[in-house]
Amino acid sequence: MPERDIIDLITSQFSPAPESVLVPAREDDCAVIEWTKDEDLVITTDMLHESTDFPIGTTPRQMGWMCIAQSLSDVASMGAVPLYLVVAVGLPRFDRKFVKELSAGMNTCARKYGAYIIGGDVDKHDEITLVSTGFGKVKKKLLLRRSGARVGDLLCVTGNLGNAAAAMKIRESGVAVDKKIKRTLDKSLLEPKPRVPEGIALSKTKVVTSMTDISDGLAVSLGELSRASGIGFEIHEDKIPVSKHVKKVAELTGADLRELSIYYGGDFELLFTVRRSEIAKVKKLRTRVSIIGEVIPKGLFIDGEKIKIRGYQHF
Amino acid sequence: MPERDIIDLITSQFSPAPESVLVPAREDDCAVIEWTKDEDLVITTDMLHESTDFPIGTTPRQMGWMCIAQSLSDVASMGAVPLYLVVAVGLPRFDRKFVKELSAGMNTCARKYGAYIIGGDVDKHDEITLVSTGFGKVKKKLLLRRSGARVGDLLCVTGNLGNAAAAMKIRESGVAVDKKIKRTLDKSLLEPKPRVPEGIALSKTKVVTSMTDISDGLAVSLGELSRASGIGFEIHEDKIPVSKHVKKVAELTGADLRELSIYYGGDFELLFTVRRSEIAKVKKLRTRVSIIGEVIPKGLFIDGEKIKIRGYQHF
Repeated sequence: MPERDIIDLITSQFSPAPESVLVPAREDDCAVIEWTKDEDLVITTDMLHESTDFPIGTTPRQMGWMCIAQSLSDVASMGAVPLYLVVAVGLPRFDRKFVKELSAGMNTCARKYGAYIIGGDVDKHDEITLVSTGFGKVKKKLLLRRSGARVGDLLCVTGNLGNAAAAMKIRESGVAVDKKIKRTLDKSLLEPKPRVPEGIALSKTKVVTSMTDISDGLAVSLGELSRASGIGFEIHEDKIPVSKHVKKVAELTGADLRELSIYYGGDFELLFTVRRSEIAKVKKLRTRVSIIGEVIPKGLFIDGEKIKIRGYQHF
Repeated sequence: MPERDIIDLITSQFSPAPESVLVPAREDDCAVIEWTKDEDLVITTDMLHESTDFPIGTTPRQMGWMCIAQSLSDVASMGAVPLYLVVAVGLPRFDRKFVKELSAGMNTCARKYGAYIIGGDVDKHDEITLVSTGFGKVKKKLLLRRSGARVGDLLCVTGNLGNAAAAMKIRESGVAVDKKIKRTLDKSLLEPKPRVPEGIALSKTKVVTSMTDISDGLAVSLGELSRASGIGFEIHEDKIPVSKHVKKVAELTGADLRELSIYYGGDFELLFTVRRSEIAKVKKLRTRVSIIGEVIPKGLFIDGEKIKIRGYQHF
């Protein structure tokens, strides 16, 4: 069962949000509430736990980093500036070194992107379970939503896709891969960089019409933008940015490159649409952006072939 | 290892909070940040999970209720008005009825106390794990802290103590207890009522000098007030409000009444101190309040006997 359907079921039981809630549960990467006359507060919460989210060998410092990065990526996807986080930490046992490293990893990630961890809870739990809740602020005029994409807009993505997937493929297959390649890809998987400055810069161009993060995979995120904006996408597969490392891993493991780059997920990049006539303003940024397609009235197509939305399913 | 020591270790790894954070992690039931010139935002996060927090027979509706109630109790303890919550839900499998009931329980509790659930995350997890993060607002002048108690103040508590403990004792001992008593105590354990209107009313009297919730037990909470305010307490044991049901359970199971009412925890009551000369303002409220002792310069005493802080330890 796709996460989306479960979220719909859960939120169907919730009372409709009041007017002060500008974006309610499930409609976007963050909920948005009114902060001041000119500014909004964005809020997101994410659960990570050992068996699903921390591959064997993940260090406590990396676990802490990932937990914070996950929430910051959601904040970034609204064009917001991260401010604060609170964390709930479930641990099977008390190990002083582990707890210090975990907390230091959380703090390093938060501070790297300008945020502070200001509260939390700790609990004994069979499995390492980390929940971070992040807050950011954004000028009302600069808030980016999943809705807003219009037919004719260009579809863009930051960075490279498939890095996290390739790192997992190396682990799963056991294939021998050059150490440097493994280290580089592992860093993408275990120390993902939330695109915080990129999200803020993109929002400031005022030519981005919709945005989301793609940590659940490009296909799922295309579905979210499509659903929220009431449009479709045509993707040009050869424009999807994939590093030579990822291509090498696909070759060595026999993995399908499309599977790695479109369906797998785990890359903390931003997916967004831009007014075609204003794309120069995005190209001028000091951020690597690839134009991978365009907005069409309906459906999801890769080079003319209709595709299904399919991605990470929790259940 | 006491939760307090682990929290100290974790927060020792966090960078000091900026000026906009009026109360940082670990110093109180909630973190407090500046909202507007006149109002503050209080934030709290709490993790609950099946093996520790949901006794056998807890319904999904009750699990949802408890998860929200836990955060609202923290918000209440600052004298704040609950506004919003976000929830992270970990579930071992997808069961439509369970998810609906759980969500309905969350919503019922939130709405009962004026709050809305505005966002969340769902994840597959070996154990039912619920994390709620709650937000409330409070006029700066009305914010109540753990610090602020002064020598000579009266120590008070809302409601009755030991209900949740007695319900657990019945379960653990297997002793036959009158059904009505069991039902009443079970309701305290599984559907705890956060003292939200009481917290707001107490704060509005402007004669309360410090406050905290006692869900971790009276002894632990006395320790927190004592530590934050730099004072001690003298408790009069015969003034601790204990229902006849709890006395009956103590009698039937051979449990120590002091253990149930002071050390066990699980009661969502408020513990607070009041200026002695102004106690009439608290007595006038439509809230049941018991004066159980007074603030002294140092140490914790019950009827002259020095006691140790001891309560729920996670590890």
